[in-house]
Amino acid sequence: MTQTVGFVGLGNMGLPMARNLLKAGFKVCVYNRTPDKAQVLAAEGATIVARLADAVTADGVVITMLANDAAVEEVVTGPGGIAGALGAGGIHVSMSTIAPATSRRLSAIHAPRGSLYIAAPVFGRPEAAAAKKLWICQSGATAAKERIRPLLAAMGQGTYDFGEDPSAASTVKLCGNFMILSVLETLGEALALAEKSGLDRKALASFFGETIFACPMYQIYGRSIASRAYEPAGFRVELGLKDANLIIDAANETKTPMPLAHLAQERMLAAVANGHKDLDWAAIELMIAGNAGLR
Amino acid sequence: MTQTVGFVGLGNMGLPMARNLLKAGFKVCVYNRTPDKAQVLAAEGATIVARLADAVTADGVVITMLANDAAVEEVVTGPGGIAGALGAGGIHVSMSTIAPATSRRLSAIHAPRGSLYIAAPVFGRPEAAAAKKLWICQSGATAAKERIRPLLAAMGQGTYDFGEDPSAASTVKLCGNFMILSVLETLGEALALAEKSGLDRKALASFFGETIFACPMYQIYGRSIASRAYEPAGFRVELGLKDANLIIDAANETKTPMPLAHLAQERMLAAVANGHKDLDWAAIELMIAGNAGLR
Amino acid sequence: MTQTVGFVGLGNMGLPMARNLLKAGFKVCVYNRTPDKAQVLAAEGATIVARLADAVTADGVVITMLANDAAVEEVVTGPGGIAGALGAGGIHVSMSTIAPATSRRLSAIHAPRGSLYIAAPVFGRPEAAAAKKLWICQSGATAAKERIRPLLAAMGQGTYDFGEDPSAASTVKLCGNFMILSVLETLGEALALAEKSGLDRKALASFFGETIFACPMYQIYGRSIASRAYEPAGFRVELGLKDANLIIDAANETKTPMPLAHLAQERMLAAVANGHKDLDWAAIELMIAGNAGLR
Amino acid sequence: MTQTVGFVGLGNMGLPMARNLLKAGFKVCVYNRTPDKAQVLAAEGATIVARLADAVTADGVVITMLANDAAVEEVVTGPGGIAGALGAGGIHVSMSTIAPATSRRLSAIHAPRGSLYIAAPVFGRPEAAAAKKLWICQSGATAAKERIRPLLAAMGQGTYDFGEDPSAASTVKLCGNFMILSVLETLGEALALAEKSGLDRKALASFFGETIFACPMYQIYGRSIASRAYEPAGFRVELGLKDANLIIDAANETKTPMPLAHLAQERMLAAVANGHKDLDWAAIELMIAGNAGLR
Repeated sequence: MTQTVGFVGLGNMGLPMARNLLKAGFKVCVYNRTPDKAQVLAAEGATIVARLADAVTADGVVITMLANDAAVEEVVTGPGGIAGALGAGGIHVSMSTIAPATSRRLSAIHAPRGSLYIAAPVFGRPEAAAAKKLWICQSGATAAKERIRPLLAAMGQGTYDFGEDPSAASTVKLCGNFMILSVLETLGEALALAEKSGLDRKALASFFGETIFACPMYQIYGRSIASRAYEPAGFRVELGLKDANLIIDAANETKTPMPLAHLAQERMLAAVANGHKDLDWAAIELMIAGNAGLR
Repeated sequence: MTQTVGFVGLGNMGLPMARNLLKAGFKVCVYNRTPDKAQVLAAEGATIVARLADAVTADGVVITMLANDAAVEEVVTGPGGIAGALGAGGIHVSMSTIAPATSRRLSAIHAPRGSLYIAAPVFGRPEAAAAKKLWICQSGATAAKERIRPLLAAMGQGTYDFGEDPSAASTVKLCGNFMILSVLETLGEALALAEKSGLDRKALASFFGETIFACPMYQIYGRSIASRAYEPAGFRVELGLKDANLIIDAANETKTPMPLAHLAQERMLAAVANGHKDLDWAAIELMIAGNAGLR
Repeated sequence: MTQTVGFVGLGNMGLPMARNLLKAGFKVCVYNRTPDKAQVLAAEGATIVARLADAVTADGVVITMLANDAAVEEVVTGPGGIAGALGAGGIHVSMSTIAPATSRRLSAIHAPRGSLYIAAPVFGRPEAAAAKKLWICQSGATAAKERIRPLLAAMGQGTYDFGEDPSAASTVKLCGNFMILSVLETLGEALALAEKSGLDRKALASFFGETIFACPMYQIYGRSIASRAYEPAGFRVELGLKDANLIIDAANETKTPMPLAHLAQERMLAAVANGHKDLDWAAIELMIAGNAGLR
Repeated sequence: MTQTVGFVGLGNMGLPMARNLLKAGFKVCVYNRTPDKAQVLAAEGATIVARLADAVTADGVVITMLANDAAVEEVVTGPGGIAGALGAGGIHVSMSTIAPATSRRLSAIHAPRGSLYIAAPVFGRPEAAAAKKLWICQSGATAAKERIRPLLAAMGQGTYDFGEDPSAASTVKLCGNFMILSVLETLGEALALAEKSGLDRKALASFFGETIFACPMYQIYGRSIASRAYEPAGFRVELGLKDANLIIDAANETKTPMPLAHLAQERMLAAVANGHKDLDWAAIELMIAGNAGLR
């Protein structure tokens, strides 16, 4: 018998992820705060529910893909929330980028009710989600992992396990976003030096993307930063700031000095302070350029 | 008729590069300050000369692959140096990592004598040099480029041209080394956060090297930094500091604020100050770990 | 008739401050979570109360001098707290270092009940508090300021007013602590450079304290940092980290990039991570020294 | 018999310093590259010479107050320079801000000729020089110090000795300029946070200048930074960058990581890159404000 899975959160990422579950043959029961967004999936076979609790089957699996920590906490512990509806043997798969501390807290909320928590954040932009090319890292209750394996396989190109600690995968996700932020700063500074030295920004970015940094992260951001193309945004500065703050919070909590993470956070603050919150987060380059007297 | 090429500097990089010229069928005339090092190439067909000037054919091509700016300036302008021996139509291909300002100066020294200067620094470690896997970026006199094309092709897997400005390729090389330094700092901070959060350093490095950062730079340094394996050194901290200083000098000259480059330079200083000058430059991670109270 | 004033929080700062109120002839009614600490003041004329609410006179003035934001919020909004007891016309003078956002929130809690909130944080160590040498900055409800003037005058050598915004004085206090943190970093780096150049640390610190930086901040910290005397702590690293975090939070809230504040925060984190949380906060110098290979 | 002293360099600082020597009754023989500038002192009793060597008495004392290291080295070792004219027993008092390494080199140049070198850089702006309010730090040959004591006393309000190492006083001067740069950055960031929090910049600067930072450095720069008054320049950004570079060079030479010094240098670079090289160096605040979206 086909498993039914609840899906909460149909943003830029959630929508294509839920669609891939449908395509893979799962019964998907979706809930979104703004119901209109869910309608498009009805035509593709999803069941649309008006109340959050109806997306949760006792003993079932529910996936959340929401904007931030507060939103996830709200759907878990708020009135009619997942915590009350899921019950013993149920599994909550939290796929958003949230603080490791939040994952620990959510896991502890589920535990006394016999529900299991898995942190399973993803790497990839909406196009990657649509193409089933997400990379997924997971951690949490071992008992749940076998059961959710086919679900994750339907949404990504590979899942990496980081053990039982429910916060581990959240930390991995923050490390990854920190590493991407670092690429943005690096490309911004390198291209500023190049431009001020009289070189062609695009030639430089191409060179590195084809040779010693031949991976999509450098190729994609190399192109956009070289040509200062920050619209439409793949991931907005404002969200980048949110993630930078999560990284700094994790660094504080673990007493880890991370000067490069602080630098990235300051760039995001500066970009917001200068009116760029809706540009792609690679637009922190505009701050680097401004300090260098470019533009 | 086979072209003869002079080769000056048989260090870790120069030796395999000269060997690849021999393998490709060029007549190679080598000079090294320490003659012993050159002997190994004699058996492979090279002509070993005792005086620098003898490695230079008037009207010929001479390649320099030396430790630093001062060494290159010395072999060009010192007694019996390249500048005097090369003459009209001769080509000096400078493949070391040197300051853009030095490339400009060398080009200006050659110009009145009718000699042509090409900056052609390379990316790759000694193993890559041996395997003919270097990436080469070149800039300088157009007239010279056609003639040296087969030589560069014999040493690398690809050559990228950055125009007529003799300093351009030197700037590209500095940008690249800055980008590598940034990877070291990034991995160091990310793995410190991971370790202090209870994660396995190697698992994290593997994950990123196999997914969103699937390129050798992250794979190789991810492995060494995850396991803190800094010996034997592929590129020593001391040389890393030299390169960091060249980057900062170029940033100063062009009035480009580069906080991440400064951070990298401070790490190199700290590593030297703590007795690590002969470790691989990835050992700046030890400074990050120390500040985080690890080890 | 003499005014009665409630005083909550008898730590290193609160005790001498309450004592100065007694000396000035005020009737002081003190509450401390740990009652033993309050007994010493009984002999000096204070009334010791066992319940927080008993320290608050409806329509009276109550001063809080507590460890952190959470403690102040607890005594205001917790069971039997100030908010319920103070009533219309009562005044809450909050003298701790807390977030501007917390001052705004506390003011908003008091407002509907007709109580007035004044933020009045102080600059000075316990010795300064004992000597009535504190500098006080205040902001908040104008109507309250005339009434509390003699109280503040009894505790400090001068009060500066920053207007009606209840958060303003809290911001001033954070700016000041940031400026002190910056002095610590500055002295630490300057003395590291001096020591590594072969100079005498103490001679250098004395010179600057007697000439271009002839103010107590440079004299006191110059002496302790020059001789690495970090015990007993005047203000512990752990509290310094708390304040650095408040500064960074305020910078985030207002979108103000403050790289020097971030640097100070990283030093505090590093000091805690290296086991120095109970040393004086000037001990961040040990991190500077460690990176320079000193000691 | 009155001592004759040579004085080389009549810039903003040198002119009032030479004038104070005249006022104190010394015979002063002045040389300036631009002779016009020297004429004003002729009326006050100075002897103006057209050739550098004529300002130097064999066995006498010559003071240099020049723009940078290169200028000092030129007047010492250039044709007709001090090194050749001073001879055994002569004393060169170098009062400019120069690299410690330059002081060492100059001392070594004088030594074989029997001439003595004293580094005696000063703290104070032109107004302080005019008012005989300079602070002087000296180091170098003990034998020379007694003889130059009355000269230094005629130019400053106090002289501090840092021993025999000729580079020591140069290092002290760099440490001091670093500390001033740090005050500029500190005030810039603190006032940015204050302004973005809705506070009055001038009120904040006044408060700190009257209370916990009651020393001229904070009062003077507090006023100019609060009101963004950067013209006329007391000390230009361009010269500030030169000094920041000397500090960084000294940090590199001694392997001392100084992140705050790097930050200051980047601010100077940014200010120059944005067209502010002729403003007062406190104008680095404009870069802080720009990143915060102010102005």
